[in-house]
Amino acid sequence: MANLDLYATLARQLRADSIRCSTAAGSGHPTSSLSAADLMAVLLGGHLRFDWSEPRNPANDHLIFSKGHASPLNYALFRAAGAITDQELMTFRKLGSRLEGHPTPVLPWVDVATGSLGQGLPIAVGIALGAQRLLSAPYHVWTLTGDSELAEGSIWEGLDHAGHERLANFTAIFDVNRLGQRGPTELEWNLDAYAARVAAFGCEPIVIDGHDLAAIDAAFTRAKRAERPTVIVAKTTKGRGVSFLENKEGWHGKALDAEQEKRALAEIGDGPSRTFPTLKPDPWQPPKGPASRKPEWKTYREPVATRKAYGEALAALGAARADVVVLDGEVSNSTHAEDFKATAAERFFEMYIAEQQMVAAAVGMQVIGFVPFASSFAAFMTRAFDFIRMAAISRANLRLCGSHAGVSIGEDGPSQMALEDLAMMRAVHGSTVLYPCDANQTARLVGLMAEREGISYLRTTREKTPILYPDRLEDFRIGGSRIVRGGERDDAVAVIAAGITVHEAIKAADELKGAVKLRVIDAYSVKPMDAAALVEAVRVTGGRLCVVEDHWVEGGLGDAVLAALAEAGVAHDVRRFVHLAVRAMPGSGKPAELLDAAGISARRIADAVRDLARA
Amino acid sequence: MANLDLYATLARQLRADSIRCSTAAGSGHPTSSLSAADLMAVLLGGHLRFDWSEPRNPANDHLIFSKGHASPLNYALFRAAGAITDQELMTFRKLGSRLEGHPTPVLPWVDVATGSLGQGLPIAVGIALGAQRLLSAPYHVWTLTGDSELAEGSIWEGLDHAGHERLANFTAIFDVNRLGQRGPTELEWNLDAYAARVAAFGCEPIVIDGHDLAAIDAAFTRAKRAERPTVIVAKTTKGRGVSFLENKEGWHGKALDAEQEKRALAEIGDGPSRTFPTLKPDPWQPPKGPASRKPEWKTYREPVATRKAYGEALAALGAARADVVVLDGEVSNSTHAEDFKATAAERFFEMYIAEQQMVAAAVGMQVIGFVPFASSFAAFMTRAFDFIRMAAISRANLRLCGSHAGVSIGEDGPSQMALEDLAMMRAVHGSTVLYPCDANQTARLVGLMAEREGISYLRTTREKTPILYPDRLEDFRIGGSRIVRGGERDDAVAVIAAGITVHEAIKAADELKGAVKLRVIDAYSVKPMDAAALVEAVRVTGGRLCVVEDHWVEGGLGDAVLAALAEAGVAHDVRRFVHLAVRAMPGSGKPAELLDAAGISARRIADAVRDLARA
Repeated sequence: MANLDLYATLARQLRADSIRCSTAAGSGHPTSSLSAADLMAVLLGGHLRFDWSEPRNPANDHLIFSKGHASPLNYALFRAAGAITDQELMTFRKLGSRLEGHPTPVLPWVDVATGSLGQGLPIAVGIALGAQRLLSAPYHVWTLTGDSELAEGSIWEGLDHAGHERLANFTAIFDVNRLGQRGPTELEWNLDAYAARVAAFGCEPIVIDGHDLAAIDAAFTRAKRAERPTVIVAKTTKGRGVSFLENKEGWHGKALDAEQEKRALAEIGDGPSRTFPTLKPDPWQPPKGPASRKPEWKTYREPVATRKAYGEALAALGAARADVVVLDGEVSNSTHAEDFKATAAERFFEMYIAEQQMVAAAVGMQVIGFVPFASSFAAFMTRAFDFIRMAAISRANLRLCGSHAGVSIGEDGPSQMALEDLAMMRAVHGSTVLYPCDANQTARLVGLMAEREGISYLRTTREKTPILYPDRLEDFRIGGSRIVRGGERDDAVAVIAAGITVHEAIKAADELKGAVKLRVIDAYSVKPMDAAALVEAVRVTGGRLCVVEDHWVEGGLGDAVLAALAEAGVAHDVRRFVHLAVRAMPGSGKPAELLDAAGISARRIADAVRDLARA
Repeated sequence: MANLDLYATLARQLRADSIRCSTAAGSGHPTSSLSAADLMAVLLGGHLRFDWSEPRNPANDHLIFSKGHASPLNYALFRAAGAITDQELMTFRKLGSRLEGHPTPVLPWVDVATGSLGQGLPIAVGIALGAQRLLSAPYHVWTLTGDSELAEGSIWEGLDHAGHERLANFTAIFDVNRLGQRGPTELEWNLDAYAARVAAFGCEPIVIDGHDLAAIDAAFTRAKRAERPTVIVAKTTKGRGVSFLENKEGWHGKALDAEQEKRALAEIGDGPSRTFPTLKPDPWQPPKGPASRKPEWKTYREPVATRKAYGEALAALGAARADVVVLDGEVSNSTHAEDFKATAAERFFEMYIAEQQMVAAAVGMQVIGFVPFASSFAAFMTRAFDFIRMAAISRANLRLCGSHAGVSIGEDGPSQMALEDLAMMRAVHGSTVLYPCDANQTARLVGLMAEREGISYLRTTREKTPILYPDRLEDFRIGGSRIVRGGERDDAVAVIAAGITVHEAIKAADELKGAVKLRVIDAYSVKPMDAAALVEAVRVTGGRLCVVEDHWVEGGLGDAVLAALAEAGVAHDVRRFVHLAVRAMPGSGKPAELLDAAGISARRIADAVRDLARA
């Protein structure tokens, strides 16, 4: 039991440092740190196996602060492990410091950004899932959650999957300190209710006093030996260790002032801040799969849906690379992600209808070196927007695919139509947004996505589309575009389209043959946009442009084109700009009927072009 | 027990009609309809109290098909109730028909659009919550869910709230048919697991055979008498009633062809389609609150944060109107929604950290006539994007407020900064997007939101901002803007700003006084945008514009301005366009430091304006 003294000393330092750094910052969450200090002291002092000098050691345990606002505790833990100095600890929340208000992977010991509650746990599930199923990894995945965030449905999506997959390498620690930001939580200290929920979702609850160091120690030991995922439901006190903070309302997210800090440190028993001995992992390397080879893309000559080409491209990737994993939200026979199973069934993850968990799991898997592709109907990607936004802050390399985009899906109606996905995905920091119009282009773009850093998004179409690029598999690039009709120096009007509307624009061009010299640009790279091609089109046509897209009028291709023109400094040269996009709420109907009703069919494009040519 | 015959006959008709209408459409979900036909037959035949000739009768029960893809069953039910004719039933999924692929409120018997799974139940919770707490309404709220959608965390957010609020007027019916779209569900027919989850979340599970008409009848009777929310966990068979469909994979979302239909109807025992007797509600009117009066807005003279003004405006509304309700996601002391409690505490709903449920509950409350305002940090509104998108399809009148927008929040870092909320909210059909820069303007805009149809969004700022409009409380309008500096016919450059950047632009104007004649436009109405003011600014300045916003470069104010200029046909007159927006991932720091680091501070604006003036 010698460790208990060590734990107590360590907990004392974690408490003192949590207060010191937040007081220096003048903001932060000391009381939310104090409640979990004993839990983290025992974890760091006796259970977490982590090589602090080698944060990328593949044998390291993973520890994710799902309660990211307890960053003072997280950073105090890094300080106690010797990963950062006391000096750096005191830069908390200052401009340029790696110690941001909430943890981000700017720090090499942080896997992912947290701070939007209910996300760290589902991401930890993703790490544990990839580690157990594909790597048989020896490490354990720990995540610390607050109790307020247990109201987020995403927590239960995460535990549902942990339970279903029997992730014995996963342990969540619920820091049940009873107090949220503005008052008591829904369940306060009803630990039995939490335990019943955990058990009902297929995980093993371990209920303890979160300030009893011996009990915590025993719980962690039990958790590591369990054959199922475990959740330590720890009763704690917010502000624990400082009499005037303990279990007090009104102290959430407030730093102590200098005088309060002095009193608090006197109570805690501040000593010189030091580095503690911690456990290292045994050496281990992940199994090396076969060397990657060049994927053998299928070549298409007959009409095929881009969603089908997506699935077949995944299958080609699966055969060529051992690091690609595919996740889907129970619609893999629609997105065609299921085709991946033909070449790499063990790397296909069925996430059921839980898009938040799907994206979280993908984020987790890229933490441990996989190259994830995750798909659902494009409309349902909106379910995971907060996770996608946070993935950008996590500097995650993530590939998403949304199928069945636009009114062109037809009969299913507006709930299944994505008419806002381009707006959503353009507004993700550093994102790449691609929207292919034929199967060969799709395959090529999927290949580029596999190599791409950051978050990339592919928008696919339900309906079969003709093949435009039978022999040009190799020359697509992100940030490019293609002229698919016209291209002469005397083109009178340019239509800029992407995906399904490229085919409508081509039909319009054919209809107008002899009447209007029309250039049709396939702007498959919505972000980054091929500004040079736009500038050239403006120059050639005297600034007569028509953008046509199967998306709401806001935030999609039209906005992207205008922004690119403005950025290129040629807005002034745009004489006439017509934007055909979805402006009224669609209903059900046949794809062609809905394209026409929305004003984005070949006929409507031809009408617009005739007007433009006259102007 | 005479009813059992009626139920059986009704169920037979619901099955036949579900098949007939989907076969006529050539698409749809007959098998998902057949599994729940017995459940719905008993509900319609013996329990649902609904005046089909008066869908807006306030005493009506509510029935929401959370499994919206079972629309054939939903419409067959309307047909059996006599609400629609057999002829109309056969227009299912055709262009112009009210019977869309998934139900929408285009039909007066449909409360809300469903079809994105996991949403109908949380909305039903919202209806039940408002009905129980504020109306003591006699009606019951029923919702039919599929089993696949039980993987969505939002379902558990809903049941958590139903349990916590002890909503005895709420009953969910889980149609556990074991098969999802692409194969078995996670829990298949493990009814005990579902029941344990339901119980752990505070609701009363009633496990039955979903094809035993007597058992269903008893379950509904028990559900209506229960003192807690109830969940009927019904074991069903997908495709029930047709031998070649029953419990078969590969039949999800597939209509039968003519020959299959014939065989199916022969098995079911098709008879002439008819109208059945149903139960009407007893007459009831909701309690009439005091008559509305004009709100007494507070007038501000000293700097105050717009989020604070939002809260105080809610309080003014609460005193003036009995129909306004306020919901918040456990951050009401930050959004200041808590101020509403000062005047209307009983109409404040704490939704804890469950943004999806918060928006769903707001959608539910507007169904029964309330005027909901729902708030969280703007960053966390992204969590509910799918719900907001669907609310537009529901034609919901919904007011949302996102606080703490932009890098100007300072130390908390990027996870708490909304830098994509304008893009998200602009891309919601029919939305209104407002971004005030001072407290008096905020109050006025909140007042306009209360009167506004559709989905409106208010973006507020964490920091205190100076008062710009001390005496002009009354003259803001949606779609307007204000010139806050310059306004002369010889202004050289126009800066278009909103919210926090209006104050930076004003500082820049003051700095440039005597050097550059600068017009600063407060574009508080981001959607709809004041195109006339932009056109005038272009004309006056010779097309020298600078947009500055605390948002990612994509999808926000800059895109909105460019789109409005293009739509107005004056893109050609824009000589120089500079867009100052957030382009690199921010960290932590002081608000002023982060504004400057992002390139959107007064200094950066002044630099840009100097360049523009020279061009």
